[in-house]
Amino acid sequence: MIYLDHAAATPVSAKVLKAMEPYFSRDFFNPSAAYLPAKKVASEYEAAKDIIAHAIGAKAADLVITGGATEANNLAFTVLDDQVRVLASPSRSRVRPSGLSPQTDGATPRFANLRTPLRRDSDTTHTVVLYLETEHDSVRAVAKKHNGTAIRVLPNGLIDLDDLRAKITDETMLVSVSLANNELGTIQPMAEISTILKNIKIDRLRRGIKRPLYLHSDASQALNLLDINVSRLGVDVLTLNAAKVYGPKGVGALYVGHDVKLTPITVGGGQEKGLRSGTENVPGVAGFATAMKEAKEHLNSNRKKYRHLKQILLTELDGYELINKKHSLDSFVVLCYPGIDAERLIYLLEEKEVYVATGAACAASKGQGSHVLAAIGLSDAEINGSLRLTLGETNDEKQIHATARIINEVVKAERQRMLARG
Amino acid sequence: MIYLDHAAATPVSAKVLKAMEPYFSRDFFNPSAAYLPAKKVASEYEAAKDIIAHAIGAKAADLVITGGATEANNLAFTVLDDQVRVLASPSRSRVRPSGLSPQTDGATPRFANLRTPLRRDSDTTHTVVLYLETEHDSVRAVAKKHNGTAIRVLPNGLIDLDDLRAKITDETMLVSVSLANNELGTIQPMAEISTILKNIKIDRLRRGIKRPLYLHSDASQALNLLDINVSRLGVDVLTLNAAKVYGPKGVGALYVGHDVKLTPITVGGGQEKGLRSGTENVPGVAGFATAMKEAKEHLNSNRKKYRHLKQILLTELDGYELINKKHSLDSFVVLCYPGIDAERLIYLLEEKEVYVATGAACAASKGQGSHVLAAIGLSDAEINGSLRLTLGETNDEKQIHATARIINEVVKAERQRMLARG
Repeated sequence: MIYLDHAAATPVSAKVLKAMEPYFSRDFFNPSAAYLPAKKVASEYEAAKDIIAHAIGAKAADLVITGGATEANNLAFTVLDDQVRVLASPSRSRVRPSGLSPQTDGATPRFANLRTPLRRDSDTTHTVVLYLETEHDSVRAVAKKHNGTAIRVLPNGLIDLDDLRAKITDETMLVSVSLANNELGTIQPMAEISTILKNIKIDRLRRGIKRPLYLHSDASQALNLLDINVSRLGVDVLTLNAAKVYGPKGVGALYVGHDVKLTPITVGGGQEKGLRSGTENVPGVAGFATAMKEAKEHLNSNRKKYRHLKQILLTELDGYELINKKHSLDSFVVLCYPGIDAERLIYLLEEKEVYVATGAACAASKGQGSHVLAAIGLSDAEINGSLRLTLGETNDEKQIHATARIINEVVKAERQRMLARG
Repeated sequence: MIYLDHAAATPVSAKVLKAMEPYFSRDFFNPSAAYLPAKKVASEYEAAKDIIAHAIGAKAADLVITGGATEANNLAFTVLDDQVRVLASPSRSRVRPSGLSPQTDGATPRFANLRTPLRRDSDTTHTVVLYLETEHDSVRAVAKKHNGTAIRVLPNGLIDLDDLRAKITDETMLVSVSLANNELGTIQPMAEISTILKNIKIDRLRRGIKRPLYLHSDASQALNLLDINVSRLGVDVLTLNAAKVYGPKGVGALYVGHDVKLTPITVGGGQEKGLRSGTENVPGVAGFATAMKEAKEHLNSNRKKYRHLKQILLTELDGYELINKKHSLDSFVVLCYPGIDAERLIYLLEEKEVYVATGAACAASKGQGSHVLAAIGLSDAEINGSLRLTLGETNDEKQIHATARIINEVVKAERQRMLARG
């Protein structure tokens, strides 16, 4: 088997599994229990959180552990709900905001409380949420739920900063841009985006506008390929994903900056400082911590390895167009064979036990053309002929030479078959 | 070590761990991916869901896998949110409900859209959610978020059916009663509750009231001690928890009856039929399935074992009052030593490596007196002197004889210490 879909899933590494094991059957105690062995588990859980946090330049107290990156992304967007709560909570002012008029209700119910005070002139230019048009479905779906507006990307996959500047309004509270795209691997200039937002916040303060403006980033794909530091990135909220860094599925985390207020999605026992109730997934978090530590330790050697393997592919493959030419994670190789159906290639490669993707795994299973490839201006024929190869720890040089050979053969055979059919 | 807190956490059994293992590092594929090994994982995931569902007399299609019971409980309560969506979704009628007047906004924002059409006379007797006052925090918290009203329990811990009847109004949409209480083990008469609701629904239909009325139950504690069948129980929504049946932490499920519409808490890739997006926790669900199968298989022998062990405790322990005399799961032994501080007993027992609880683990860590014990009419002194022992698969007869002896010794020593201090 040659697995080239590490962006979709990574195997749990031996070290990670070893870190998890004690917490399944031996140290299985509920961290909330009152006796010593449970308290020991609770403190080891905190220590594991601290390791995860340290890997991104943060502290355990800044992290909310979630059931995955999708939940973390959804939780990040509750910075908006919080404002609803602040406006409407019974414990605060019950005075009805002066701008709330019957006419503004109904169409956008989830935002009624938040938006109506600012919709005095009934226009539709007020943008509360901005998100990059190439975001993963988990960001796009939650952004759409909040009537978010998409920021365009340039043909190279990078955020169009002019479009960002043009679309931010005085009502904008959240901008969500993934650190690295899940289909192209495109690394976005977070620090630059952060600086733009900082200047807008300074300008808002000067004009007496107190509305906050947060920067969220989904770092799921970037965790084991970039040296991530929340301060350097300038993000307020950051999504982490264990399952993409050789950690377990079903575990993620959200970094939450000090002045960011979230509203819990699930309430109950008050775990994770009330932001995510439910008995802690101790083995999962122990595994996540080891995965993050490993990722950090092998960052440079892995990047070097992937650059080398990528170069082999680009040299030895025939007749392709490279889609992600620049600004991309070292592990992403997105190729296009115009006129050839990539779905068929996947099937033919599968027969040779070479596993690649046509786009995001999620999108692929729904049979939809990639919104990411469309966003960078690819034609339908190009999109249908595109393959995503994502390198990872399971790969070695020998595999990659074989991959190039097998893909060349398969593409050649497919071209001949098409010619024969006329 | 003698572990007597199986209601707080259970170790992952050897069989469960074995069922999980292949999915960590070998069959780690993303079930949404397009190639064969991933599709195989997807079908095995569905098969595991089917096993879980079968254990409660349901089908895989009826289950939504969650990150635990707390999330499942929170998801259950979205039967209420769904109504908000139906009323206010832009894709449906945008007509403003006639009852919505400015005065009704503000105080209960989360329900404004739902409740206002029915609050024409501005009174406060409209009860949308009813929940048992002894529910776990994860139900209480979400019920309170929805302005829920508590149903009283009788001194024996059972639901006060008269109070239930009295508190249901034409607006009531959801009644939440856990199958077995997490502090007392009290088994509630779900079928009887279901019949009451059925009659109310018939009466509503006769009067032209179309508002649905759902019965939700958190079955977390009951899963490996009762033979659960959703039809027999008459529930519309049922919460399951892997971590209480020797399965992994961080995995739960919600059974959702055919006519029940939920609103997803997290949106994204559309997994779990759109009700819970995020890459599937394949090893977790594989483990959960094995845990449910095991629970079902050993149900009768386990119950017999626990009844026997419980009897040993009740016979050999000295000077206690039994709190959960009747209607309780066989594994729950809730004792009271009035005048003695149970927190101190826990500490003294911990030194002998006997681990018990004073109440729910969650409540215990917050240092609050148990709301459950208060609800059944116990005094503060009784609550402070109460111990919860929950038997499980880690216990044997020898351990239980030792437990009785150690608790007797510790209680005696504590009484003498108190006498000496005067």
